Amino acid sequence: MPPEEATAQQGPLSGLRVVEISSYVATPLCGLTLAQLGADVVRVEPLGGAADRTRWPLADSGTSLYWSGLNKGKRAVTVDMASEAERRRVVDLIVRGGPCAVVSNSDRYPEFGYESLSALRPDVIHALLQGRADGGAGVDYTVQAASGFPLITGPAGTDAPVNHVLPAWDIAAGLYLAVGLLAAERDRLVSGRGRSIRVALDDVALATAGNLGYLAEAQVTGHERVKSGNDVFGTYGRDFLTADGVRVMVVILTERHWTKLLAATGLTAVFEGLADTLGIDFSGESQRYEHRELISTLLARWFGGVPFTEAAAVLDRHRILWERYRSFAELGRDGGAELRKSDLFGVVDQPGVGPHLAPKSPVVVDGERPEPRPAPVVGEHNAELLPAAASTAPTVDGPGDGGGTGSLTATRRSG
Amino acid sequence: MPPEEATAQQGPLSGLRVVEISSYVATPLCGLTLAQLGADVVRVEPLGGAADRTRWPLADSGTSLYWSGLNKGKRAVTVDMASEAERRRVVDLIVRGGPCAVVSNSDRYPEFGYESLSALRPDVIHALLQGRADGGAGVDYTVQAASGFPLITGPAGTDAPVNHVLPAWDIAAGLYLAVGLLAAERDRLVSGRGRSIRVALDDVALATAGNLGYLAEAQVTGHERVKSGNDVFGTYGRDFLTADGVRVMVVILTERHWTKLLAATGLTAVFEGLADTLGIDFSGESQRYEHRELISTLLARWFGGVPFTEAAAVLDRHRILWERYRSFAELGRDGGAELRKSDLFGVVDQPGVGPHLAPKSPVVVDGERPEPRPAPVVGEHNAELLPAAASTAPTVDGPGDGGGTGSLTATRRSG
Repeated sequence: MPPEEATAQQGPLSGLRVVEISSYVATPLCGLTLAQLGADVVRVEPLGGAADRTRWPLADSGTSLYWSGLNKGKRAVTVDMASEAERRRVVDLIVRGGPCAVVSNSDRYPEFGYESLSALRPDVIHALLQGRADGGAGVDYTVQAASGFPLITGPAGTDAPVNHVLPAWDIAAGLYLAVGLLAAERDRLVSGRGRSIRVALDDVALATAGNLGYLAEAQVTGHERVKSGNDVFGTYGRDFLTADGVRVMVVILTERHWTKLLAATGLTAVFEGLADTLGIDFSGESQRYEHRELISTLLARWFGGVPFTEAAAVLDRHRILWERYRSFAELGRDGGAELRKSDLFGVVDQPGVGPHLAPKSPVVVDGERPEPRPAPVVGEHNAELLPAAASTAPTVDGPGDGGGTGSLTATRRSG
Repeated sequence: MPPEEATAQQGPLSGLRVVEISSYVATPLCGLTLAQLGADVVRVEPLGGAADRTRWPLADSGTSLYWSGLNKGKRAVTVDMASEAERRRVVDLIVRGGPCAVVSNSDRYPEFGYESLSALRPDVIHALLQGRADGGAGVDYTVQAASGFPLITGPAGTDAPVNHVLPAWDIAAGLYLAVGLLAAERDRLVSGRGRSIRVALDDVALATAGNLGYLAEAQVTGHERVKSGNDVFGTYGRDFLTADGVRVMVVILTERHWTKLLAATGLTAVFEGLADTLGIDFSGESQRYEHRELISTLLARWFGGVPFTEAAAVLDRHRILWERYRSFAELGRDGGAELRKSDLFGVVDQPGVGPHLAPKSPVVVDGERPEPRPAPVVGEHNAELLPAAASTAPTVDGPGDGGGTGSLTATRRSG
């Protein structure tokens, strides 16, 4: 890719450079999100590439599909992190030229910290991800355990915690970082000053539990949440199995939804009878939640008696809020035929992977979003961003603190 | 709260007004996040309050703890949505005065849409949440079903999908909306123009599955993901039970972690023997993942043989990445003693709930974050924001399209 193409990005963040000194999920997602909105995002890696370059799942070539997904459309440089002179090149990248923000998940090197950088460039924005707000280590999976959610996830009547496979706290933390960074960028445009932004995974988890009412409930009511399978809390929602074994999720939020579901399933008279006999008013959300087992028993009979295509036609005709469970295998099958139906996906020809469908930004700006771009190979942009890069030649510095990983020979596969 | 206090907000978004015409989780979280960073967020509700005002969990008084959590620090006005004149007051709130952004989860009223608003105010920013990008209805629980994740969540060997209790797509979508809105706000400061931002829940789910490599894996490899309980994919991580029945999560990402865990559990010699005998190199992440059952069997024996306090001391001494599973009940117990340890929480005295610990923003700006503020009661800020508000008097308009909910008498519990 010629430099012109790499830097000529469109979008509301065009003109903003983001230097990403990061790994894993949260900080790379922050950078990806900003890149998709037009920022020029440069990922800095140690020699040979960052540790997460080999993270599963892998293509047959050994290229990480995970890394490729989270680093689309960025530029990538490698430096010998053990060398002070090399780290100074990264500092130069940040403090010279147009407006710049830094995204990092480490405070290992003081020169990449807010204090050092703001002394050289008072308008720098610095966004730091922490595992724990108290400075301790934490990753999505450990933060999950402490968050409360795994103990109320999974089938009713079971004890063992069920972790989310989705690293939801990484995702949320990466997006909170982007929000903080852009809030600081607004302030920079108004006042000219930079800001330090900090987001910790454990704060994100506990703030979310608080925002959704879980922690207030635990403090002010005697009620203790327990596992309730796929039942939606406080309203009516559950999964059902059709006669031919297809699993669907159905959600009833309003009285209109409820009336339509009864009409769709032919249960209107049955529930009128139950309402009369048992004195239950099914028209309210909380009443439906309280009597969800009764409702589910009758609905499960209906779903169990019809094949999926018939159930789907009836639910759609009555505009019920429902969805069929899909597997990743199904979503990827036949060259991603299912994904092609959506404007979200575009073809990326990723080195080491080949052409495949990859997502654009879920943020649509003025009705448009740019096509997805490949992730960079190791050191791909060293030549254009670090013109006299010492990283391509042996350094005269000592071995330092061992921060460098990989070998010199692996430094520049492309450039 | 006097008007001065309500509007004198600090933070990098101070001076930006956000008018929120929204409900449920994603759009209110967007507004909450912006309010916590200093924006003046005004939530617009129909007469009597929005439908989500009664969502569970509830305090004994009937006040929604969920609503209170997601609407902290906003101002709230009610208008008769069925009245065109009343809706015009909301339009006035948006188009008059300083810079303004709109957050909405509905395209029901054309005058609140981007086209109408930008005709009156070209620099308006409009952020719309959709259920499905194709315009169809969707909520977190239905989008989850189609996302692929529930079919690979839960114990290995089971078939039924396990939904996340956490509405992760709502959370991510709300934060993506905030990112899009602030990217547009940057562009407005640079170019003076407004933007239309759109985020759909199903796009957020599929984009995330794509960004994390799940969809590329399904397209380009023959590998099909299956449920694997609490095992972390592609590296080593799992939950264990101590001798006294305490559940902990342990994660090993690096060779250093691995060496330390063996030292902590006294298994160094055992694994050296296994490495020699079986020819397995346990030093690599992918090798540890492939042989995770062998590792887990031996670790489970160790954990099962020590009480929790002893295990905790050993793990901490060796700086292992681990965490104990906590319940919401534990987090709320004793007036939130566990939460008080963190700077994240502050006391809010919420009408209908009383004083309790509520989270501040997980985004720390220059080392600080403001104390949490209560959520507004229904129509609390009508008098200051809609001075000659017709909503407090019977309207001369016809019944309109029935968009208004609730009764006139319930309009202003506080002013």
